[in-house]
Amino acid sequence: MNLPKKVKIVEVGPRDGFQNVKDFIETKDKIEIIKKMVDAGAKHIEITSFVHPKWVPQMKDAKEVLEEVKDCIGDREVELIALVPNKYGALKAKEAGAHTITYVISASEAHNKANVNRTIEESFKELEDIQKELGDVKFRLALATTFGCPFNEKVPTSRIIEMAKRGLSMGADKILLADTIGSASPLKVKNIISEITKEMSPEHFVTHFHDTRGMGLANTLVALNENITYFESAVGGLGGCPFAPGAAGNIATEDLVNMLHSMSIETDIDLNKTGEVIDLIREKVKSPIVSHMASLCKEQ
Amino acid sequence: MNLPKKVKIVEVGPRDGFQNVKDFIETKDKIEIIKKMVDAGAKHIEITSFVHPKWVPQMKDAKEVLEEVKDCIGDREVELIALVPNKYGALKAKEAGAHTITYVISASEAHNKANVNRTIEESFKELEDIQKELGDVKFRLALATTFGCPFNEKVPTSRIIEMAKRGLSMGADKILLADTIGSASPLKVKNIISEITKEMSPEHFVTHFHDTRGMGLANTLVALNENITYFESAVGGLGGCPFAPGAAGNIATEDLVNMLHSMSIETDIDLNKTGEVIDLIREKVKSPIVSHMASLCKEQ
Repeated sequence: MNLPKKVKIVEVGPRDGFQNVKDFIETKDKIEIIKKMVDAGAKHIEITSFVHPKWVPQMKDAKEVLEEVKDCIGDREVELIALVPNKYGALKAKEAGAHTITYVISASEAHNKANVNRTIEESFKELEDIQKELGDVKFRLALATTFGCPFNEKVPTSRIIEMAKRGLSMGADKILLADTIGSASPLKVKNIISEITKEMSPEHFVTHFHDTRGMGLANTLVALNENITYFESAVGGLGGCPFAPGAAGNIATEDLVNMLHSMSIETDIDLNKTGEVIDLIREKVKSPIVSHMASLCKEQ
Repeated sequence: MNLPKKVKIVEVGPRDGFQNVKDFIETKDKIEIIKKMVDAGAKHIEITSFVHPKWVPQMKDAKEVLEEVKDCIGDREVELIALVPNKYGALKAKEAGAHTITYVISASEAHNKANVNRTIEESFKELEDIQKELGDVKFRLALATTFGCPFNEKVPTSRIIEMAKRGLSMGADKILLADTIGSASPLKVKNIISEITKEMSPEHFVTHFHDTRGMGLANTLVALNENITYFESAVGGLGGCPFAPGAAGNIATEDLVNMLHSMSIETDIDLNKTGEVIDLIREKVKSPIVSHMASLCKEQ
């Protein structure tokens, strides 16, 4: 098995996790949870999304969350990332002090249309506009539906490669390969990532797996074997459907970290302290915790 | 990736799953569930355990369940397997018409003592006695704690190899490599199975993974890559602790089958019909269903 000594993790719970929670989470609770994640070792956090509150009311406090967390963190080296759907969001994220923005383009035309009401080409043009407007903004390009589209549009790997190359040529810090609907199989992950990394170095890529069908960690293992060393996950496995217990969301940070540690792969995350974050989430967030390690973190 | 075209699955829900359910499941309900599993394509079922009802009251109807299911199945080719802890259980299982028995010896002395109050050597002697008494009984030797012991006893792979060889020399049909406490990491699975299969053909082995820490499918993937083609799983992911939702038990048959099918690996199992088994379990069994695919089976 081809395993690295250390990997990086982006904690996406405060963005991808929280945005799927129906009941509003108080701003002060969000901030407290994020601070506890930093205490648990998180070095890269997708902290919020500068999306119109009409579409995602949960993110209406994006500015306040980002500004407050930035103040609290002080000079600790933590990358605060904000997702933005468009130029307006990018401007707001920069104003509030985001270190990095995540800009999403779906590799499926149908999904991109449904998600941001643009063609893929229009989305790239908007990204160019963002760069013109914001100057040297550090950005990550997320390629949604890399491993499967909810509208069953076939996404050829050549398109993923082309989009990734275009993103890198525009200066993207990282390219995210996102399994938006949790449908990737290990074989698909192997085939797609090995094709991509024939043409570009694996160090440019981050995987974003959902655990909808329970294959999240198996897919991560395959990505590790293909030399990917950067992963996104959400504490507590947040991001699933609150009405279907067991229908998990993002891969859970604690499940991911436990698997990595059990193979002697270092992360910056302390599993015991992650257990404390989960306790706080249970107290403050009305969403079931569906990860496997949630109750076992403190026993490791 | 080194993947087979077809694999075999032993459905262990009626034994390993049910025995962890606190409330008694009515005998007629057990039988109905097992019959539905057969309808869903199960060809190998660990149907019950001939253990003393004082230790596992849930299994007090072992004889009745086995006899009734055998009658219902008629001449359909389904292997009915019964777990036995000792010679007495083996005799009862044979009398009731089990096709195959599973006999468990733990690779950890401490766990074997706790489980059956015998040394490993005494357990092998009992197996010899069973063979003398029962003649040409078809048996599977399950090596509990192959990948980790709850008492932290270190189990050298050389001991697993020695025990497996001894089992095969005694005529074992299969050797089960069991991750009794769900602590195996993919790296551990790789290391142990690759060592074992240097000395014996992979076709002798069946893996039995628990999903306690969410690594069950990742571990299965590694085993597949090491040429294992025979897996145990429990419908609904039964076998977990009923007081800790998310603390999963056996890997869920539906999660396993979905992963295999999504990589074009054939099984005998129909995912849609497995969804019907799960509906019945929800109705009849007081235990949470914690698998990922439980609510998605019928959408595949």
